[in-house]
Amino acid sequence: MSKEFSTRKENYSQWYNELVVKADLAENSAVRGCMVIKPYGFSIWEKMQAALDKMFKDTGHQNAYFPLFIPKSFFSKEASHVEGFAKECAVVTHYRLKNGENGEIVVDETAKLEEELIIRPTSETIIWNTYRGWIQSYRDLPLLINQWANVVRWEMRTRLFLRTAEFLWQEGHTAHATAEEAIVETKQMLDIYADFAEQWMAIPVIKGIKTENERFAGALETYCIEALMQDGKALQAGTSHFLGQNFAKAFDVKFTGKDGKLDYVWATSWGVSTRLMGALIMCHSDDQGLVLPPKLAPTQVVIVPIYKGEEQLAQISEVATKIKKELESRNIRVKYDDRDTQRPGWKFAEYEFKGVPIRIAIGARDLENGTVEVARRDTKEKETLQQADLVNKLEHLLTQIQNNLYQKALDYRDSMISYVNTYTEFKEVLETKGGFVFAHWDGTVETELKIKEETKATIRCIPVDNPLEAGICIYSGKASKQRVLFAKAY
Amino acid sequence: MSKEFSTRKENYSQWYNELVVKADLAENSAVRGCMVIKPYGFSIWEKMQAALDKMFKDTGHQNAYFPLFIPKSFFSKEASHVEGFAKECAVVTHYRLKNGENGEIVVDETAKLEEELIIRPTSETIIWNTYRGWIQSYRDLPLLINQWANVVRWEMRTRLFLRTAEFLWQEGHTAHATAEEAIVETKQMLDIYADFAEQWMAIPVIKGIKTENERFAGALETYCIEALMQDGKALQAGTSHFLGQNFAKAFDVKFTGKDGKLDYVWATSWGVSTRLMGALIMCHSDDQGLVLPPKLAPTQVVIVPIYKGEEQLAQISEVATKIKKELESRNIRVKYDDRDTQRPGWKFAEYEFKGVPIRIAIGARDLENGTVEVARRDTKEKETLQQADLVNKLEHLLTQIQNNLYQKALDYRDSMISYVNTYTEFKEVLETKGGFVFAHWDGTVETELKIKEETKATIRCIPVDNPLEAGICIYSGKASKQRVLFAKAY
Repeated sequence: MSKEFSTRKENYSQWYNELVVKADLAENSAVRGCMVIKPYGFSIWEKMQAALDKMFKDTGHQNAYFPLFIPKSFFSKEASHVEGFAKECAVVTHYRLKNGENGEIVVDETAKLEEELIIRPTSETIIWNTYRGWIQSYRDLPLLINQWANVVRWEMRTRLFLRTAEFLWQEGHTAHATAEEAIVETKQMLDIYADFAEQWMAIPVIKGIKTENERFAGALETYCIEALMQDGKALQAGTSHFLGQNFAKAFDVKFTGKDGKLDYVWATSWGVSTRLMGALIMCHSDDQGLVLPPKLAPTQVVIVPIYKGEEQLAQISEVATKIKKELESRNIRVKYDDRDTQRPGWKFAEYEFKGVPIRIAIGARDLENGTVEVARRDTKEKETLQQADLVNKLEHLLTQIQNNLYQKALDYRDSMISYVNTYTEFKEVLETKGGFVFAHWDGTVETELKIKEETKATIRCIPVDNPLEAGICIYSGKASKQRVLFAKAY
Repeated sequence: MSKEFSTRKENYSQWYNELVVKADLAENSAVRGCMVIKPYGFSIWEKMQAALDKMFKDTGHQNAYFPLFIPKSFFSKEASHVEGFAKECAVVTHYRLKNGENGEIVVDETAKLEEELIIRPTSETIIWNTYRGWIQSYRDLPLLINQWANVVRWEMRTRLFLRTAEFLWQEGHTAHATAEEAIVETKQMLDIYADFAEQWMAIPVIKGIKTENERFAGALETYCIEALMQDGKALQAGTSHFLGQNFAKAFDVKFTGKDGKLDYVWATSWGVSTRLMGALIMCHSDDQGLVLPPKLAPTQVVIVPIYKGEEQLAQISEVATKIKKELESRNIRVKYDDRDTQRPGWKFAEYEFKGVPIRIAIGARDLENGTVEVARRDTKEKETLQQADLVNKLEHLLTQIQNNLYQKALDYRDSMISYVNTYTEFKEVLETKGGFVFAHWDGTVETELKIKEETKATIRCIPVDNPLEAGICIYSGKASKQRVLFAKAY
């Protein structure tokens, strides 16, 4: 199946689109901009969810569920939030259909809502409106809540996983007694996102702070993690916001402190979405298809028999089943594919395309020699291994593959970080090499927007551990106190 | 806290509403008919989800995700489906807001959708429209897919968990090559629902088939499980539908069989929702608050220290922490509440109200005697147990409590099944005792509707193992071949 498939070099964008569909991850639906997440894609997302959910719970967060609908007026309450979110959104205006004159179905105009409802693009407003009833005293704080939900943003140009009208995500919404505590929480969740990206997705990320212009609508500070894709474009993989008292003030959420004084509550919010699926696919996959880090692969090891006749299959199956059981006892996700409807070559191509980390083939000669053939998806290396002690070796190999994918992505990412001192250099790097570019910036929104307009590059972030360094803004020539991280981005 | 709380006898309905809110399970939101599921309630729902999800996967089902929106025209395609579902629903007509003349936010009339989108009330239509692209040959079958999602039905009268405009559920949608296979699947999922209700929720259910009148819109046969609440009203806890080829025909989903012939695909769908939370609460709880079956309780055992002074607390904490660790090593969910902000009595009332199955108290005398006090939530019995071998006893006790709740619910349910032969008797039982009533019915929709109109009782189901028995319809006096199960229902 890989033969009809675009390569990354030919057309990166087409390669991605084809890969997502052909590897059974997702497809476009009959509804503009909305995707169907297919079972194979969804099983990867489920593994991401499980890992993140555990990390959230281990740090004291609890899940809850808030309404899909937000009354229109709620958006007006936080001034900057409305600008960012209430514009391109799905609006529910009616609550009934009826049969029309020609038997078709039409909207019943008599069933018009008094106040329109917005499908949540993010839930700060409905949640902070709820928190008003939950928080009275410092004893009710911190309130550490997360929600797994679908949200809708009416994007005009959509791409599977990367930008869809409806997407799945988690959104954490926490309430604290002090600004300090809220900032600690904001940073903690950023660290969790970075750890998840690096340790589970095998994607190195740069942690940083967004500029005012790129900040979440309603936040005082937006932290983010930025990853680099194989085409040299950046992808924002998660954000964590310090919201100050903005939403508490907008929704009148006050608490009595230990000192008996009333004050507004301090807030954070943080989220990652099915966009991570896009990052996962784009970061590791190659021209032969998907490459999945073992920790997130629905199937980690596949066993394919190579046989002539029923009798040989029975002998191979005995060995395969034994290996399968041993692997399962180590919680390794393994599949034995003894279907007789497909040839081994077809199966090899299929599992390669689906990104299964390890493929084991067992043939007649292996039976004689007590061996199996083990093939790695990441390096495509094959080796013949003894059946004895195989499970330990495979377990080790899965770890190796996970680490190798991370190291490979890290090496690539690091090779794609440039430092430039002039605007000419800046543009040249963007046009030829791409990747992350560290350059001096004068700190103004004006300059940031001009650069974006002229080069399509945006300031991805100011890294959290960014060294101060006096310099001259590449665009304005004004004084700059540090380099910031630019890139063209998804 | 239980003092201000209604009793079941005084006002069952109010008792339920208060319990849901005061036990931190859910509350009404700012959006009409939509609930907020609070962390404690959601953690119970998560446990239900996890158990069901495993049962689905163990029987070969995979999860996927389909769009929230359904194009209006999709509903017209299956004639009976539209009658059932496209009426009371949330309709998205616009995709943008803008600033109005007075600075308020208004719907941008220029951003009107060409075709309105319906928020899914159930997903047969969008899913079968998708399956057309997924199914070509018998090799693609069976297709066994489940979705966890939110759905919206614009109910006029809503009650927390039992009937809300938005609710959470799972919906299975499977495709098969033959009617027989689809029917086997329909029944298998009904059995899974019944097993889950009985083994996890400790709720006995009656499995049956709905009458034509109560059938799912678009189904050939609807199977259901029916439970009985403590007020003698029935609650439908899950449904499994054999859809025949209705949706395959409506969305033109055909497959090539082994014989090379083209035929329409056979379908099932099946679902349970957050309504199960309502059943769980209403089935077991009492006038002192929530009673939870151990398998679904977020906290199964709580340990409360009774102490004077720091030193005594330290000694008790040592014992408590040891017990906690031992319980955790058995995967028992345990909490040690050593907060000094609340007195033991308050904590006792709190955990009783929240339905924690086992409460352990440790005081000064227990330290001397090497004992603890163990209190059961279900029977309110207390006993003093030796610390040695405590964990085995607690593990056993949790099983006992689970079984006791089921047995108690079963005894009650069985005591509330009546057999009547006349309409007078029928009405009398409904008015005085309530519960399930087995009565002869002539099999016509007309009679069914008349009885419903006059008594509010509906035919809950024809039990799957219903004995045939010639008789006379209680309403029409016509011949009947079996008794069917009537009840007033939620």
